[in-house]
Amino acid sequence: MRTVHTERHRLRASQTELYGGELVRPFECPERVEHILARIAEVGLGPVEEPRAFGLDPVLRIHEAGFVQFLETAWADWRAAGYKGEAIPTSWPSRRMPRMVVPDEIDGRIGYYALAGETSISGGTWEAAQAAADVALSAQAIVAGGTRAAFALCRPPGHHAAQDMYGGYCFLNNAAIAAQAFRDQGAARVAILDVDFHHGNGTQAIFYDRADVLFLSLHGDPQFAFPYYLGGADETGEGPGEGFNVNYALPPGCDFARWSAALDDACARIKAYGAEALVVSLGVDTFEKDPISFFKLGSDDFTRYGARIEKVGLPTLFVMEGGYAVAEVGINTVNVLSGFEGG
Amino acid sequence: MRTVHTERHRLRASQTELYGGELVRPFECPERVEHILARIAEVGLGPVEEPRAFGLDPVLRIHEAGFVQFLETAWADWRAAGYKGEAIPTSWPSRRMPRMVVPDEIDGRIGYYALAGETSISGGTWEAAQAAADVALSAQAIVAGGTRAAFALCRPPGHHAAQDMYGGYCFLNNAAIAAQAFRDQGAARVAILDVDFHHGNGTQAIFYDRADVLFLSLHGDPQFAFPYYLGGADETGEGPGEGFNVNYALPPGCDFARWSAALDDACARIKAYGAEALVVSLGVDTFEKDPISFFKLGSDDFTRYGARIEKVGLPTLFVMEGGYAVAEVGINTVNVLSGFEGG
Repeated sequence: MRTVHTERHRLRASQTELYGGELVRPFECPERVEHILARIAEVGLGPVEEPRAFGLDPVLRIHEAGFVQFLETAWADWRAAGYKGEAIPTSWPSRRMPRMVVPDEIDGRIGYYALAGETSISGGTWEAAQAAADVALSAQAIVAGGTRAAFALCRPPGHHAAQDMYGGYCFLNNAAIAAQAFRDQGAARVAILDVDFHHGNGTQAIFYDRADVLFLSLHGDPQFAFPYYLGGADETGEGPGEGFNVNYALPPGCDFARWSAALDDACARIKAYGAEALVVSLGVDTFEKDPISFFKLGSDDFTRYGARIEKVGLPTLFVMEGGYAVAEVGINTVNVLSGFEGG
Repeated sequence: MRTVHTERHRLRASQTELYGGELVRPFECPERVEHILARIAEVGLGPVEEPRAFGLDPVLRIHEAGFVQFLETAWADWRAAGYKGEAIPTSWPSRRMPRMVVPDEIDGRIGYYALAGETSISGGTWEAAQAAADVALSAQAIVAGGTRAAFALCRPPGHHAAQDMYGGYCFLNNAAIAAQAFRDQGAARVAILDVDFHHGNGTQAIFYDRADVLFLSLHGDPQFAFPYYLGGADETGEGPGEGFNVNYALPPGCDFARWSAALDDACARIKAYGAEALVVSLGVDTFEKDPISFFKLGSDDFTRYGARIEKVGLPTLFVMEGGYAVAEVGINTVNVLSGFEGG
């Protein structure tokens, strides 16, 4: 399988994550990619290619222009305000503060566009996020060109990012941008299967009122897991999108038997939907040793489910999302891709 | 003027405030009260008295039971989850995550109930917040008993706290609890005048649909100042409360001439409304040297506006809110009270 990757992911090198009331080194760190690249080489998965530059047009098919502009200038604006640390929101439009106006002051603007505060914005973040979107679009082009599957080794990840919100380590929604590219190039129906441990709230929000993109997510029950405030099984889409959003909210301790039953159901729905292309939001934080998640998949399970996804029979774009057991992230990610290739 | 105060405010001794991407010592610190007490003694303002204990009933007239229970147990739950720092939310129900269910996990529950992340919950926070409500209720009882005015030296402050949200250094809305006590004791109409630099978003939210409590707030324009997402002049109340919420959103650099013109308008509205009691949310962060605000009042201006408030002619309860120029917070606060006494 061909992989698209760029060293520009290293520009995303935030030093602080707000976790447990402390500022710690981020779980979403550059070494994650090194482990995946090493494992790709080790098993001989296939070539690793540089992305092309697609510019902002395909990004703006998904994200609001004001949000993109915010991401481009947030770090400079934050520094200009005299703040000493990385950019972290301290307030936001809450349940009881519904004023939907973007504040002028950067401290207010960052809270307006943030859906979570663990994700510091640092110098280089925008450049890395844009490079990750190019990685997704370049791998999408490989699949659209007739290759059965490709792997977009995106970093930073994307599935938490909504049309105008960042957070959960995500800035631009790489999977959504790629799915829209399939649509814009003529695919009538596209499915996005999100197997990251965390609910793909951003992807859901983006396509919630659309029937042309089916979104399915297997994830930790939001009663117990980030992002907490979206991801319930009762969220099924709205308007024309009603019935085209499927959430599998799975409990703490969920093992592969239960998880793969949900996957089987999701795969059956994708086939029934008649998707012409499949985008997989590939997070491997379902792993039993992941430090911030609570599912119990073993490394061999990743191979098994890669083979299961192959059986759907669609042109398939894998887009990297989460996975924070850094030492094993390469093995587990490549197991999915190898499982698909051997499936 | 009689002051109500308790040393239990010291139980609110958080060590971390998220500010500018760093964890710094909180601006809202115990020394604030020491400076006010010293100044009260210095000018001979009047006796300083201990509060009585009122229990939770008057608190629950304003705050939702689930929220109060959250505040009572948040610190213990946070510690039980193994987190090392003080309790700070990292995610919240954002504009694109509208699931209105309280998560089970404390990391999600704290985000559900928080309107801002600068305010760490630490051991003793609940006890201090409850004591501050007792301070407000005890001072309210003095005024309800026929004394023209009293000063509730509350800490932590309260005006940002909504019926089920904390933040902006506030946990229980002391002014709202006291205003409700006036109502419950027979006052047909109560006015709350909020002169803190920051918009009293919590107080507004609590009384937004009610005509029996008139809320007026002079504050920094939310385009440029916390709480950013509430406080516009176009917010005038809703339903039966339409017309009973008045916001004066004032620009950066606002001086006393402009500020006092707004105060004159507010005082005229309070008289026209026919309030039987007045609660003043007294923050002195309108001071020109305040480190986190942008108005330009000098210390003498506080004396002047205290006298202006006296001219409204109502039984008046002053409830302490913000003010972070610690060295001058005593002078400015007591200037308002002395101005009222001499007004």
